[in-house]
Amino acid sequence: MANPTKSPPLTRPSVIAAHNLIREHIHYTPVLTNTTLNDLASAPQSAADLADTPWAGQTAANPKLRFYFKCENLQKVGAFKVRGAFHALKRLMAEEGWEEGGGREKGVVTHSSGNHAQALALAARTMGIPAHIVMPTISTPSKIAATKGYGAKVIFSGSTSTEREAVVADVMKDTGARLIPPYDHPDIMLGQGTLGIELQEQAAKIIASGGSKSGKGLDAIIAPCGGGGMLSGTALSCEDTGIFVFGAEPEFQGGDDCKRGLEQGKRIETVKTLTIADGLRTPVGAYPWTVIHDRKLVRQMFSVTEEQIKKALRLVLERMKVFVEPSAVVGLAVALYNEDFRRLVEKEGGADGWDLGIVFSGGNTSVEFLSKLYAVSEVKAEREGGVVGMDRKKTVENVAG
Amino acid sequence: MANPTKSPPLTRPSVIAAHNLIREHIHYTPVLTNTTLNDLASAPQSAADLADTPWAGQTAANPKLRFYFKCENLQKVGAFKVRGAFHALKRLMAEEGWEEGGGREKGVVTHSSGNHAQALALAARTMGIPAHIVMPTISTPSKIAATKGYGAKVIFSGSTSTEREAVVADVMKDTGARLIPPYDHPDIMLGQGTLGIELQEQAAKIIASGGSKSGKGLDAIIAPCGGGGMLSGTALSCEDTGIFVFGAEPEFQGGDDCKRGLEQGKRIETVKTLTIADGLRTPVGAYPWTVIHDRKLVRQMFSVTEEQIKKALRLVLERMKVFVEPSAVVGLAVALYNEDFRRLVEKEGGADGWDLGIVFSGGNTSVEFLSKLYAVSEVKAEREGGVVGMDRKKTVENVAG
Repeated sequence: MANPTKSPPLTRPSVIAAHNLIREHIHYTPVLTNTTLNDLASAPQSAADLADTPWAGQTAANPKLRFYFKCENLQKVGAFKVRGAFHALKRLMAEEGWEEGGGREKGVVTHSSGNHAQALALAARTMGIPAHIVMPTISTPSKIAATKGYGAKVIFSGSTSTEREAVVADVMKDTGARLIPPYDHPDIMLGQGTLGIELQEQAAKIIASGGSKSGKGLDAIIAPCGGGGMLSGTALSCEDTGIFVFGAEPEFQGGDDCKRGLEQGKRIETVKTLTIADGLRTPVGAYPWTVIHDRKLVRQMFSVTEEQIKKALRLVLERMKVFVEPSAVVGLAVALYNEDFRRLVEKEGGADGWDLGIVFSGGNTSVEFLSKLYAVSEVKAEREGGVVGMDRKKTVENVAG
Repeated sequence: MANPTKSPPLTRPSVIAAHNLIREHIHYTPVLTNTTLNDLASAPQSAADLADTPWAGQTAANPKLRFYFKCENLQKVGAFKVRGAFHALKRLMAEEGWEEGGGREKGVVTHSSGNHAQALALAARTMGIPAHIVMPTISTPSKIAATKGYGAKVIFSGSTSTEREAVVADVMKDTGARLIPPYDHPDIMLGQGTLGIELQEQAAKIIASGGSKSGKGLDAIIAPCGGGGMLSGTALSCEDTGIFVFGAEPEFQGGDDCKRGLEQGKRIETVKTLTIADGLRTPVGAYPWTVIHDRKLVRQMFSVTEEQIKKALRLVLERMKVFVEPSAVVGLAVALYNEDFRRLVEKEGGADGWDLGIVFSGGNTSVEFLSKLYAVSEVKAEREGGVVGMDRKKTVENVAG
């Protein structure tokens, strides 16, 4: 990878510079609004909804919320990851001595079984540079095929991080390829943050055209947090704008490592969760942590249950008619179901409420995955109980990606 | 219903007039394009793809196709049906003597367990008129709840057409409500056809902005056909424009009644199919038939298998990231998999190919329905066989809506 110490400073102007560097290669993805979801979010949860939660028996918050959904599921390769990949690659290519040292022939390498693999493969192909992608042998054939489809060379490894890193080290030794990590690098953070710049512009236009009294743009943005590259980049994109940035995590099996880390004042470095939000199973990285924790550019982290993620996902699919992956809806789930967040909005937003940007991070899931997620027991629940999204089962089903 | 003999003539100008009448009440839904699907459609099917089809062993067609998807899944109530409902209702309200005869108090009635129920409920509520919706007792609770949610009065009936019609007759007798049928009425056809006017405008803009050599608009539109209200309306919207209109049906259990009717020169009046394209289980109606058959405004009908519908649906969900119901993708399935259609495009479109409008008719399906559609056996198929959408199972699974 490009030497992180030579990265641009982690500031909003650097995110704007990153945007100028990559915008010709990425989609300017749409921002959608949805009255049904605004209405749902702007009504208090029922006592029944709160029954099995930490807020059982308490008065439900009554915030006013208007959502602006940044649809990175419609981004190239189906996820925001191309932003960071293009930026990191272009920064690497601009590094002094890279071209002369044969960088173009030696290429790049990464390990990923997910969206970063395809993102780097696409970026490298676009630039005419070879890409080596280390993937666990257990990766689904369709993901391997997709990565190869972008012209990358796929090298298989075991599935533990030690095994993967050993294979990456071998590839680097054999080929001289440079590593482009998935999130823990300033160039990646600045690249991912470009979605925040676009979301601010787009939401401001929609708000202005709707004749909002205040005439101002977004009040806040909430984004999912896995390795934290995108969340920290989004936070940088909002620096000094007055827009609050919040992070959202799955709480299942300790998946809310960033939230817990902030509470104890120390980054949590290992996480082992099989949350259905499979893009968020990673612990937050060291560089993102400096933005989220040290510089306090993320105001607060919130977490939701697996069941709340499933409910939010169902709403996005069935009501919005937009196809997203479970990780993408974790921010929406916070806005709909987390009473701590909702009380904050009620208190600070008052009668006007908040214009809230929500990052739909990606759409790379399969009908088979959904098939397992909403398997037959729920059909029965729907037929018996009636209305969509109202079931409150305590059992949590987990489906590995 | 308004007296059909007093409806406007079935012409393109009448569709435009209908559009002016309803446009304030409906969404001007987006038209999307998708490079991946264009590329897929513009490559010949493999010998393996054709193995189990009527074209086994033959040379695959090699058409060039560029798609323009009219997203009526993003329409109000999630389907194009609001267009016809609003138009029929506004025409009824303009009928001489309706207001004076107490029409506003007596309201409207229909029987439907599907999209038309919610569409009429919404239109009636918007106009401040009571709506009585006769639904089979076996309807799913979520659909009943949604219809009630639009303020309609739901009356239950048995599920045969005789039982439903008896209840409708009772409601009409008791309340004086007027019937708004789901498709077999000129006002409904003209209302649904308004989507064709929009699609023509939108596609022409996209084509012009892409710097197409010809500078002309669409070459053709393909739309699904159930009762034929929307297909015939779309055909009317293209009258004298030079744009061909094609219809698409599921062939399962004789669901391709319009195609078979055209072949034998006589409308088929009863159909009993449990195709997964549950919006297309109805036989084509008498009024639509006059446009499709007598006036030959639909050039040709094509049909596809259940498995082809499933493959097309998977592509739309996983690749386009757009949530649609199975009925919505039947036109796309024809364009991707029906060699008769593909040969026609190759022959007539030549090297330039065709700009083809495709109507995504609706998005009202549930995660449970998809869950059954792509249940576990297919997970196995994907893990073994690899790439998405490439399975060619001979067994057809059917899931009742």
